Amino acid sequence: MAAQRKLHLNINILNSGFHGAAWRSANGVPDAFLSVDHYVRIGKLAERGTFDAVFLADGLTITDTPDHRPFQALEPTIVLATIAAHTTHIGLIATASSSFNDPFNLARRIASLDLASNGRAGWNVVTTAETSSARNFGLDGVLEHGSRYERAHEFTEVVKALWDSWEEDALVADKRNQLFLDPARLHAINHEGRFYKVAGPLNVPGSSRQGRPVVIQAGGSGDGRNLAAAHAEAIFSVARSKEEGLAFAADVRARAARYGRGPDEIIFLPGLSTIIGSTEAEAKRREDELWDLLSLDFAVARLAGSFGLPPERLSLDEPLPDDVAIPTNGSQTFSQAGLDTARREGLTVRQLLRRLGGGTGHRQVVGSPEQVADDIADWFEAGAADGFNLMPDVLPEGLEIFVDHVVPILRKKGIFREAYEGSTLREHFGLARPVNRFTATRTAAE
Amino acid sequence: MAAQRKLHLNINILNSGFHGAAWRSANGVPDAFLSVDHYVRIGKLAERGTFDAVFLADGLTITDTPDHRPFQALEPTIVLATIAAHTTHIGLIATASSSFNDPFNLARRIASLDLASNGRAGWNVVTTAETSSARNFGLDGVLEHGSRYERAHEFTEVVKALWDSWEEDALVADKRNQLFLDPARLHAINHEGRFYKVAGPLNVPGSSRQGRPVVIQAGGSGDGRNLAAAHAEAIFSVARSKEEGLAFAADVRARAARYGRGPDEIIFLPGLSTIIGSTEAEAKRREDELWDLLSLDFAVARLAGSFGLPPERLSLDEPLPDDVAIPTNGSQTFSQAGLDTARREGLTVRQLLRRLGGGTGHRQVVGSPEQVADDIADWFEAGAADGFNLMPDVLPEGLEIFVDHVVPILRKKGIFREAYEGSTLREHFGLARPVNRFTATRTAAE
Repeated sequence: MAAQRKLHLNINILNSGFHGAAWRSANGVPDAFLSVDHYVRIGKLAERGTFDAVFLADGLTITDTPDHRPFQALEPTIVLATIAAHTTHIGLIATASSSFNDPFNLARRIASLDLASNGRAGWNVVTTAETSSARNFGLDGVLEHGSRYERAHEFTEVVKALWDSWEEDALVADKRNQLFLDPARLHAINHEGRFYKVAGPLNVPGSSRQGRPVVIQAGGSGDGRNLAAAHAEAIFSVARSKEEGLAFAADVRARAARYGRGPDEIIFLPGLSTIIGSTEAEAKRREDELWDLLSLDFAVARLAGSFGLPPERLSLDEPLPDDVAIPTNGSQTFSQAGLDTARREGLTVRQLLRRLGGGTGHRQVVGSPEQVADDIADWFEAGAADGFNLMPDVLPEGLEIFVDHVVPILRKKGIFREAYEGSTLREHFGLARPVNRFTATRTAAE
Repeated sequence: MAAQRKLHLNINILNSGFHGAAWRSANGVPDAFLSVDHYVRIGKLAERGTFDAVFLADGLTITDTPDHRPFQALEPTIVLATIAAHTTHIGLIATASSSFNDPFNLARRIASLDLASNGRAGWNVVTTAETSSARNFGLDGVLEHGSRYERAHEFTEVVKALWDSWEEDALVADKRNQLFLDPARLHAINHEGRFYKVAGPLNVPGSSRQGRPVVIQAGGSGDGRNLAAAHAEAIFSVARSKEEGLAFAADVRARAARYGRGPDEIIFLPGLSTIIGSTEAEAKRREDELWDLLSLDFAVARLAGSFGLPPERLSLDEPLPDDVAIPTNGSQTFSQAGLDTARREGLTVRQLLRRLGGGTGHRQVVGSPEQVADDIADWFEAGAADGFNLMPDVLPEGLEIFVDHVVPILRKKGIFREAYEGSTLREHFGLARPVNRFTATRTAAE
């Protein structure tokens, strides 16, 4: 595998861009978060750059303070179906919460997207941590972290079983003999677990092209790593150093082995936030400009919130208070990332916010196309990443710069594809086609 | 209003077509139910015919016997988002169950489709009656008919309130003054009812173009009529005679008045199943051919099932048994329609099946384009219908014939539009733009 190993690139379409001030920048599109045209433009751009996939995060509440900046609004599968209609190759990854969806409806929606896109769909499994989301679904609060992940585990089990409930040759469509579907190739799943009871079969096949939609996972907590180890085929991880990237992958692979899974069954795509200029100086100028546009009130409130603290506990020119701790029931990955960075480098709150690009705990590179490409190649060749989940500062601008100026260098280095070789997301990711569980059982019995 | 009154036409895209043998016919596409290309082709065809909307029914289980014929498979909003990307005017109506969805997720998905299509979305509210669907959602059975509709009523209330939770001018997007959304134009709904507790606001506006997505309803039972009276702006009704159409509309309008709604706030679109030939004789030949392809075993089983009977209780050449009754907890409209037709006309089971075109309880016309157009004009002019929910025998073939041969006659009669005048579904249907409840309250207070 080592000889043909190729880089994977995924674009995280976070409305106007990943920087907290993206929407206010000169080329920022403030209402991008409500416009499918914006998403389609980015999808086409990413396809021109032969990216593996576009990815949409999601939320089920208006997070942060709505007067300050865009948030996840449009339902991801609707946006991705629209992108699918305007593209032919690029993969389409939707985030959907295991906490506030029914597994039957979700399995069906992703399977429908997969059929609509000829096998390009993926599902990023998350759990939902915000109380304000729970309150949109009849509850006063969310489950605690461990139970939420236990539920996510069972939810994913059910979804994958439903995707398998049609064997590949279930549809016969024999007009002459009046046989539409072969009942022997269609299976009830009769799942009964701690959280779910689902009979099946699904009323749509799990995939006609890639066996099953690809399962992606993004959480870095212990519970999240176990979920990933059991189910994920790609992981959107957080890694600020190559050592961290290598250690994370080794840890998850070791956990995966306990589920009987091999080291090639998961690819690791750390988040990479980019600010690119034609020279390093220009990139830094761009960073400065964005920083000047950022609402510090907002950024401080957001950072404080990630530690479960009121904003007044943080002072811009002081370090984080000594008693800052990671909340046990929130999204732990980013608060941990922020805390580690601040402590390790002795940063003030202001310096930390700047390092975080206004709110994200992902690694940020600021530089020329050559510098960004070298950085990517360095990580890839060290095995610290199989590719990256790209988070440009401003969209579509930041992606356009990447596609036009970084991608050619990566191709010249021989680590990134010149053209698509496959047509499904699974093929782009270099993942083996999974064996349908019912076909396996039936074939074993024959 | 009478002078400008125009006919409304909606196409029901039931996979390969409405006839039970559609998939087996010469031009039938057996795997149409899994192919968005098929749906897109029909959407474009309907737009060429200046139809008001395309409509997708839905189901959450494999109904009937899967070896016999196609069923609702692809999730409707994914299909409609795809059609939206390939069209510019036609309305897009998705069926979604109030029994097995969360109001927050559903409100968001339809609102997203509405934004993605520039104001062309509608939602057909249904309840789900099949035990096999309930078993895909952790339950052993469905609620009884009355409670199911009571729940649907509250569900629709919540969805409409969520759609209103952003006032029209909530998005400010003022880069300079750093004001993204106006918090005073964004509202919690804090709904607490018998079945639902939902805080809101929605994380996406209800509509930027048509005020709110259009609410459609399709059930004809007493409970269904009350739901329609309270919420529906268009009704897919069942009417086999003009008298029935007039009586149904009068009844629902009287019920709607009790909710303070005016007679122009609802349009009535009875189902119309069509088999069209260039002459009446050719149409009848076409009907015979389809009849010959129909699986009688399947049709009998389906008819028996609608009465809650085992298939062996029905004999093809006998009338329906005397003790046939309408199940109190199923879909009552179609079983009632079948029973009424059989009793009124003294039909045998075979004759009834033929009359029902292999399973539907909707009125069927078999004839030349002139005959079909005359029939439509007759009903429309008598006020028995504001238009029709068209159900061609075979798709896309039956729609293509209608668009090319019936639509020109309807235009010549002056009852159908020559070109689109508006761009939203609400405009096509001639419905007034609803007033946002929060804007109304705020304006009244000012």
